[in-house]
Order: sequence, then C-alpha cells, then structure tokens
Amino acid sequence: MAKQNLDNIDVSEYPYINKGLEGIVAFSTTKSFIDGQKGELIYAGYNIDTLAENATFEEVCFLLWNDRLPKQDELDDLNKRMIGQRKLPEPVLNYIQSTDKNAEPMAVLRTAVSMLADFEDSSNNTDAAVAMTAQMPIIIAAFARAREGKDILDPLDNGTTAFNFLYMLNGEKPGKEAEKTMDLCLILHAEHGMNASTFTGRAICSTQSDMFSAVTGAIGALKGPLHGGANTAVMNMLLELEEDPDTADPVEFTKKKLANKEKIMGFGHRVYKTFDPRARLLRGMSESLSEETGHEELYEWSEAILKTMKDEKNIDPNVDFFSATVYYSIGIKPDLFTCIFAMSRVSGWTAHYIEQDENNRLVRPRALYIGEKNLDWTPIEKR
Amino acid sequence: MAKQNLDNIDVSEYPYINKGLEGIVAFSTTKSFIDGQKGELIYAGYNIDTLAENATFEEVCFLLWNDRLPKQDELDDLNKRMIGQRKLPEPVLNYIQSTDKNAEPMAVLRTAVSMLADFEDSSNNTDAAVAMTAQMPIIIAAFARAREGKDILDPLDNGTTAFNFLYMLNGEKPGKEAEKTMDLCLILHAEHGMNASTFTGRAICSTQSDMFSAVTGAIGALKGPLHGGANTAVMNMLLELEEDPDTADPVEFTKKKLANKEKIMGFGHRVYKTFDPRARLLRGMSESLSEETGHEELYEWSEAILKTMKDEKNIDPNVDFFSATVYYSIGIKPDLFTCIFAMSRVSGWTAHYIEQDENNRLVRPRALYIGEKNLDWTPIEKR
Repeated sequence: MAKQNLDNIDVSEYPYINKGLEGIVAFSTTKSFIDGQKGELIYAGYNIDTLAENATFEEVCFLLWNDRLPKQDELDDLNKRMIGQRKLPEPVLNYIQSTDKNAEPMAVLRTAVSMLADFEDSSNNTDAAVAMTAQMPIIIAAFARAREGKDILDPLDNGTTAFNFLYMLNGEKPGKEAEKTMDLCLILHAEHGMNASTFTGRAICSTQSDMFSAVTGAIGALKGPLHGGANTAVMNMLLELEEDPDTADPVEFTKKKLANKEKIMGFGHRVYKTFDPRARLLRGMSESLSEETGHEELYEWSEAILKTMKDEKNIDPNVDFFSATVYYSIGIKPDLFTCIFAMSRVSGWTAHYIEQDENNRLVRPRALYIGEKNLDWTPIEKR
Repeated sequence: MAKQNLDNIDVSEYPYINKGLEGIVAFSTTKSFIDGQKGELIYAGYNIDTLAENATFEEVCFLLWNDRLPKQDELDDLNKRMIGQRKLPEPVLNYIQSTDKNAEPMAVLRTAVSMLADFEDSSNNTDAAVAMTAQMPIIIAAFARAREGKDILDPLDNGTTAFNFLYMLNGEKPGKEAEKTMDLCLILHAEHGMNASTFTGRAICSTQSDMFSAVTGAIGALKGPLHGGANTAVMNMLLELEEDPDTADPVEFTKKKLANKEKIMGFGHRVYKTFDPRARLLRGMSESLSEETGHEELYEWSEAILKTMKDEKNIDPNVDFFSATVYYSIGIKPDLFTCIFAMSRVSGWTAHYIEQDENNRLVRPRALYIGEKNLDWTPIEKR
C-alpha cells in the first residue's frame, strides 16, 4: 500500500478497505456464540433459552467471567461482594445530584463510571468487574430520582441486583413478577459477541489500559442510536403512535415511514438473518406484561409493526424491539432504556476485557490515505 | 464459519483471525499519511517538517478539521472561539477540586471530558471539537495544581493554547522558548493515523454516538502503557537511572534489561521501520532544552540508550522516547505526560470523528467462538 501513488484515489476501487470491519474476524472468544442463520445464542456454553429458564443475572455474571457456572458457595460469595459494593463514593453522588437535570442519562452513566476509577482498585480484574456491575444500577437509579427532585435512596443490604435496582428507582420494593422480568432482561442483554461496544472495550483493553477506561468507552459506544440507543428510539416510535390513539394505525404508520425511506428502529441485525432469540423471549414477556399492566395497545401495535415489516421488507425484529415495551411496562422511562442495557452488558464487557487481557495484542488497523501529499507552505496572507 | 464444529479448536489453525487487526485497512482518510519505510508523516497534505517549521497548533487544528490551512480571519475566529471556551463549568471544577489527590491524571481527564458533555452542545461537530480542544488543557492544569493544594488559576483571555496552558500549570507566564517548545509538542502529537485511540474514537462514532463519547473513549485507550502511557514509562526509566547518578550507566542498564527480556519503553513502532520523524524533531529539542535547563545527563543517557538499542536490537526510538525528556525539561511532571499527549491528539481524534460521521459504517468485526455449545443445565447443588 505504501508504495502506490494514492493521490486523487477512487476509494471504491479498493475492495480491501474493510469498511465497518464487516466479516473480519478479530478475536477468538469463549464468551458467546451467535448462529445468525439458526437464530441461536450461546453464553460460554449455555444456550440463552437454558439460561433464561434457569439462571439468575448474578449466575450469568459468574459464568461470563469464569466460563463455568458457580457452586453455591461461590454464588453466595459473589452476591455478598456485589451487595457490599452498592454504595457510591461521595464525589460520584455529588456529581449525580449537582449536574444538569437535562443531561443525557447515558452521558451521566459514562461520567460516573469513569469517576469510580478514582476510588476503586483496578489492579484486579474481577474486583473491578464486580464493582462496576454492582454500582452501575445504583448510578442509574440515583440519577433517575435526582433529576426529578426525589431523594436518592440508600441501597438495600440484601436482595438481587434486579430487586435492589427497581427498589432504588421506584422507591418501593418490586413484586416477584417485576423482579423476575427485570432479572430476565439483565440476562438477555448480558453478552452478544463482537458488537460495537464490546469491541470498543477490547480495543481500549488492548493498550493495557484499565477496565474502567474500557467500560467507560463501551458505554459511549452503546449510547449511539445504531447500537444500544435503538431501544429508546423504538419506544419513542410507539409513543408517537400513542399520541393520537384514536387514529393510531401501526400498519399505515409503518408503510408511510417505509415509503419515506425512514428507518424503522428495532429491525434487522448484521448477524441475525432470522428471528433474534432474545426478541423471541422478550416478545413473550411483552405480551404477558402488557396485559397485566394495561398496555395491551403497545403490544398489539408492536405485533402489527412486526408483521408489516415482515410482509413489506422480510426483516425480523432485533433485541431492541420488544425490550422497549417490556421496560416501559415495568415503569422505566424511555430515556433510561439504554442505561438498563448497559447495566446488564457490563457483565459481558468486563468478561471480554478479562479475555483480552489474558491474551493481548494491540488493536491497530490501518487507514488508506486519500489526501494530497507534500504540499508547499503558503504564508497566511497569501491563502 | 458458522457451519463448522468449533469445539476444542486450535486457534493457531485459523490464519484468518486478524489478531490486533494488523494490516487490515478499515477506513479511508484525508487526515494523515505515514510512510513507515521512509519515516514520513503528513497531516492533510503537509509534511510534519513543514508544519513544525511554520504552523501553530491552532493552525494545525484548523487544518485537521477542514483539510486546508485557515485564512487570517478564520484563524482569528478560531483563536477567539478557543479562548472563549477556556472556562470550565462549575461541576467540572468541583470534581477536579474534590476528587482523590492520588487519582490518575488520565482518569481525571477522562471523567472531566465526559462530564463536559452535560454542559456543551454536541449537535455541531466543530463546536464540540473546539470546546474539548480548548478545555482539556484547562482540566489538566487545574488538576495538576489542585492535587498539590495550589489554587486553580483563571485562564488568560488571550495568548495561545500552549502559552495559557503553561501559565495555568506553573502559575507564571512562560518565556518565548518554553511556549514554542510546548506548541511544537502539540503539533507533533496532533495526529497519527489509525492508532488505537483514534480507532477507538471512530468505532464509538460509528454507532452515531456523540463526540464527547468518542473522545472520552479515546482518552481511555491512550491511557494504556502500550499507547500514550509509554512516555511516562520512558521518563520513569530515566529517573530510575538518575536515582544513583554516580553509578548510572545507561549502556549497562539497557543491556541488563534486554538480557532480562524486559521491555525498553519508547522503542519500536508497528508502522515505522525507521526513525520516527517526530522522534527526530523532538531529539533536537531535547538536546537544546537539556542544555538550557541543566538536564544534560538526561539527554546524554537518552542518546546512550538509543545507541545501545540500535546496536543490540536494531530498533529505533518512537515519539515517546524524546518527548519524555522534552516535557520533563519544561517542568511537567512525568505522570502528566500522557495528558499532554491527549490535549494535542484531541485535534486528531475530533478530525477523525468528523470524517467518520460524514461517511459512516458501523464498526463491528467478528470473533471466532472457541468454547463449548449447548451444555445441559446442572442444578447448583450438583455442581
């Protein structure tokens, strides 16, 4: 490449530019496997359906970090450590309470996680992973309340991550169903191979930077609407329909958007060419929850949009599509959806950090230069 | 790939795993060109030697963001905007003043830049780039003083980025030579193709996340000792020698480290196979500065280590090797070196963000799964 004359190049002539790195295999991993043809997702050996049926989020964290399920004493120990880590350092709380109430929740989460590094030891990967996984839900709940002028609650000294999060968010202890739903959402979003945020975290790790840097960067990547930001966009689309429920017609709505070449959020995936297994599990939850909570129309609209997209474009929904209605049904504000994704995915990010750290190679691709070369300097008065 | 049985795989059998993405061309760019064989570096058309001789850092920022040099009124306008952005929002100042005095400076910079997003508009790329480029030096100088119990100074409402930074760091206005040195260091570190931090920033941008997220992630990547952290490591190596100056023998010191298979920081580069042109320019500065400031031994040791590395391993120094002694000579503490790198490179990171944003494709490579599949669930009491 360096030998060619690259001036005034037509980039399309260079098929070896791997835009978006699509199809390039950059790592080996034991963390997850996706069969996009079959619609299959495996975390460290276990099918997502097996985990959804049997595991807790904390067990999934242990599995991702250690590539095996915990024994009872190991799980007890992990639960104890996570509960012990629920308190935020004072400067982090101060920041959450004093920052702009209209700040983006994902930006606040990014800042607060970055700030945790000043108070935590990053020399042990597992300790750092436990600290962030335990503290991210606290950060999210604290900001959600602070921005509404409500008191930030003290964390519970018992209960699951899901239970404590819903308690700290809503100010009352959740019922069994709500806890189970939340826990299942955390399990389903925990890990998903080489997505843009996980990849960002591994690239940061590859410079031998610390785990807080990697997770901070991953949060920044997840924030984008082409990645985790999509579930908020799905909900906003449904709320757009709800604004005029008398005339709301999801089929016409979808067709009109397609005709205008607008993107319908929550559909399609670079890897899955069939129904995303997480979308399948969330679809069931969405149906039962929407009945329980009186949001039937949201579920019905979702189904109508899904059918229209299948008929018109033959595209299936992705994980973001039904997670939107599920989160909304358990009382979470749409602009917090991506944060919920993050508080789950931190388990996968940190697992990938551990894996990268154990077998590292600096991540540094190349770029093809298509600009000019060796220009003469023009004094400023002659430009 | 999805069709194979990947159980118990020997990864070395898979030559298509592009570990570290080495040699993979991921983007086209007009921002910089490196000829690693010739030791040539070009920013948006102009050779680094041309820029070092003629440009100011602010001109280089304009060049990187716009792919052309500014006219006088454009440069005046940019200087005015950057000076106007020098004040930090109150919560950012509060954080800098109240956080742990022993926090890592790069971690503090990462947090503070992330926090800026709550107070800045990220909808206009140039505005966001100007804001971060103007405010990062203020953050660094503020933390450098706050952690020593010194007052944080108000920024000057005139003067270059380099001048104001040295003033706010040291509490006195710098001389012409110190300002020029600082400015040249900022120019030399501004941009360098697809390094790990720039790549991280582009990956974050590729999800359509905001520029603050991208720069926050890039700071996290630069922090690692395999990337920007190397200049601090070089200085610590020289200070290790200085601890016992009577017996200090840089040649023996280097040979002993090589014999012990220890890494000598500041040597070798994945792209340059000859003398890094930035190291060449910094070498000259290091020589004259060390004389002026009475640190001749540091320069002499550097030269001796350089010669030993060339003789023993035929490896040339990289940009970090001489930037260490240059920064040290103008009174900057070693643990701030990587921050100085960051306050320059933010110009390149933001330029690449602008470029990625204009022609985006989600960055999402793949990983080869080498774990087990479809394991049966074992109840916890039977594990």
